[in-house]
Amino acid sequence: MPANLAPAIVRGFRFSGVSAGLKTVAGARDLGLIVADRPCCAAAVFTANKVKAAAVSVMRERIRSGRLQAVVANSGCANSFTGKPGLTLARESCAHVASLIGCTPALVAPCSTGVIGHLFDFARFRAGAAEATRALREDGLDDFARAIMTTDTRPKIASTTLKLSGAAVTVAGAAKGVGMIAPHMATMLAFIVTDAAITAVPLRAALKAALPRSFNAITIDGDMSTNDTVIVMASGAADNRALGSRDLQSFNRAIEDIAAALARELVRDGEGATKLVTVEVRGAHSAADAERCARQIANSPLVKTAFFGCDPNVGRILMAAGSSGASIEPDRLVLWIGGVRVAARGALLTDALGEAGRAMREREFTVRLDLRLGKSSATILTCDLSYGYVRINAEYTT
Amino acid sequence: MPANLAPAIVRGFRFSGVSAGLKTVAGARDLGLIVADRPCCAAAVFTANKVKAAAVSVMRERIRSGRLQAVVANSGCANSFTGKPGLTLARESCAHVASLIGCTPALVAPCSTGVIGHLFDFARFRAGAAEATRALREDGLDDFARAIMTTDTRPKIASTTLKLSGAAVTVAGAAKGVGMIAPHMATMLAFIVTDAAITAVPLRAALKAALPRSFNAITIDGDMSTNDTVIVMASGAADNRALGSRDLQSFNRAIEDIAAALARELVRDGEGATKLVTVEVRGAHSAADAERCARQIANSPLVKTAFFGCDPNVGRILMAAGSSGASIEPDRLVLWIGGVRVAARGALLTDALGEAGRAMREREFTVRLDLRLGKSSATILTCDLSYGYVRINAEYTT
Repeated sequence: MPANLAPAIVRGFRFSGVSAGLKTVAGARDLGLIVADRPCCAAAVFTANKVKAAAVSVMRERIRSGRLQAVVANSGCANSFTGKPGLTLARESCAHVASLIGCTPALVAPCSTGVIGHLFDFARFRAGAAEATRALREDGLDDFARAIMTTDTRPKIASTTLKLSGAAVTVAGAAKGVGMIAPHMATMLAFIVTDAAITAVPLRAALKAALPRSFNAITIDGDMSTNDTVIVMASGAADNRALGSRDLQSFNRAIEDIAAALARELVRDGEGATKLVTVEVRGAHSAADAERCARQIANSPLVKTAFFGCDPNVGRILMAAGSSGASIEPDRLVLWIGGVRVAARGALLTDALGEAGRAMREREFTVRLDLRLGKSSATILTCDLSYGYVRINAEYTT
Repeated sequence: MPANLAPAIVRGFRFSGVSAGLKTVAGARDLGLIVADRPCCAAAVFTANKVKAAAVSVMRERIRSGRLQAVVANSGCANSFTGKPGLTLARESCAHVASLIGCTPALVAPCSTGVIGHLFDFARFRAGAAEATRALREDGLDDFARAIMTTDTRPKIASTTLKLSGAAVTVAGAAKGVGMIAPHMATMLAFIVTDAAITAVPLRAALKAALPRSFNAITIDGDMSTNDTVIVMASGAADNRALGSRDLQSFNRAIEDIAAALARELVRDGEGATKLVTVEVRGAHSAADAERCARQIANSPLVKTAFFGCDPNVGRILMAAGSSGASIEPDRLVLWIGGVRVAARGALLTDALGEAGRAMREREFTVRLDLRLGKSSATILTCDLSYGYVRINAEYTT
């Protein structure tokens, strides 16, 4: 069953989100906690950026054991490019949270998002963490999702339920974007929790399997953050029996559904975005060709400004495809915008452009390019490039 | 001696630029001619985009002989993604110009720039070409430069003189941009003419040698056009003796000076650009690392919007560097913005940011990143990403 965008109770977890004064806006939530009743299985993937945040380094160490009990996430400060003081701060933050909830520091992992190059105030963090611990609630996922927002205009949550080995299992997640988003191997901050009883190895496999069609299939601005992290935690509170291969398939599908729903929400809320565009390349010579072609179209500033202007600019889309490095024969390809065929047999279908332009006025539409050279395909979600993107990123330090 | 930005007389060539009605704006110049007194040596390089304009295909065939007498360039229509009708149109255009100036069609090469996917009106072209032939003048380079403009706000011209084997030689050029600019192997339209006596092979070598530090070292929006062409023609009217290796060095340097001056003018006039930024990466592990790191910084929308906002956003620059794939050690690198050191030893130099922000208010400044890992370096010229870029590309079909 597809994910829905509402929060859910996931047995074995409590959540909170409070204002610790780490953001410059007074009263804005900026510190979130996810705490499990007991140590649980966990897996995570991280940014491929070679400049990595302190939180990424610390979480990477701790996730190796496959066990965590809590995650502490802050917005307003990325604690990235902060050297040893940044690492110390991340470790001390975890130790403080561990003392508040009563577990060993090695079971607490940190996440940070916000401005790069600065440390956050530890005194404020300590007070905020104490408040966040007091505020922990089973139905606190929405508060948590709000505490991790930066330029996001709304919290992003998804949940789903399924039957596994006779038990009812819930999977829920929260994520934040919405600039510096062009994940590779991992992405922004996303948190997925489940009450399924599952061990760390298949949990990690489920997360990895979910990436290609979720977080690794989106782009907002082609820029890869230093803090990207996706983490999944399983409490086991659903008390299902050991999972057979069919159950694992269902579970993997549920993780992918949640990841895909969150990824889609990120793009819908992309900085300055007015449109969600699905770029679908099929008929490519190879999977790599399909991927690079779709990505080049999805990241082209000329294509993205044409989306914003509702301009069915076939030339720009083909320019991007042609420069991607993928094999292309201009006389063979067929292009659709919003379901309208606009190019075929090496020529523009001029009469169709009016209809295509009207289809682009919708908040969501698809660009489909069939290269007609092979059987490989790829889909990337992207958004338009608007005045809003320039305003957000030129007028404020983010 | 460095190139200057004024037009010059280049013996053996005449130029013109007229309005043929190919652009929608009435009276705008859109048809340019370069005609040599007799067949001359020529070389050209073209876009690496797999979707290639008809003019690129036709010129590529004709330049193989190393000889041309005329180039006819039109703006207002790219004649790209136009299949066989486009090829026929490009060939017939050249045949018509050949009949007007009295040479064989194989000695005339076409160039086109403008909207992709459309043919231009041949009747208008014929009338325009006749007028352009009548208008040919030795001092017509400025008219030609104006006829090839699209979203350019001003014509781009450079010229220089040098002594070669006892003769005074002139090199001059004209170019147009200024969107869909991220050349690779070749770029936009640029025309370089010289009265030097030189054969096709060293002429082509000079052009190829000039690219890495001129047209291949600039980016405006990371998008590679389908029509990019750089052509150089040598009339031999300077009557210099055969060139020795020292002379060739001087000549190559002059070609590079002209190419670099034109490339710089393209970025200064980039769509919506308010700033010219030189991105210099040094101390890289390899030349490829230096190049990809500089290019990633120069193309990042987050970095470019920060340039527009005069925001010394070190984090975004390091994010881009870290995601480029180049080897990077955050604790070793040093970063300067506008000559101000803003990051070193793994930390932001917070006190310096005010001064760096003030330096960014200039129309031109440099971002220099020393990775301190090796001896390779690369320099890319870029511009900022402003509301103007979005306006130009969202509100009009280009």
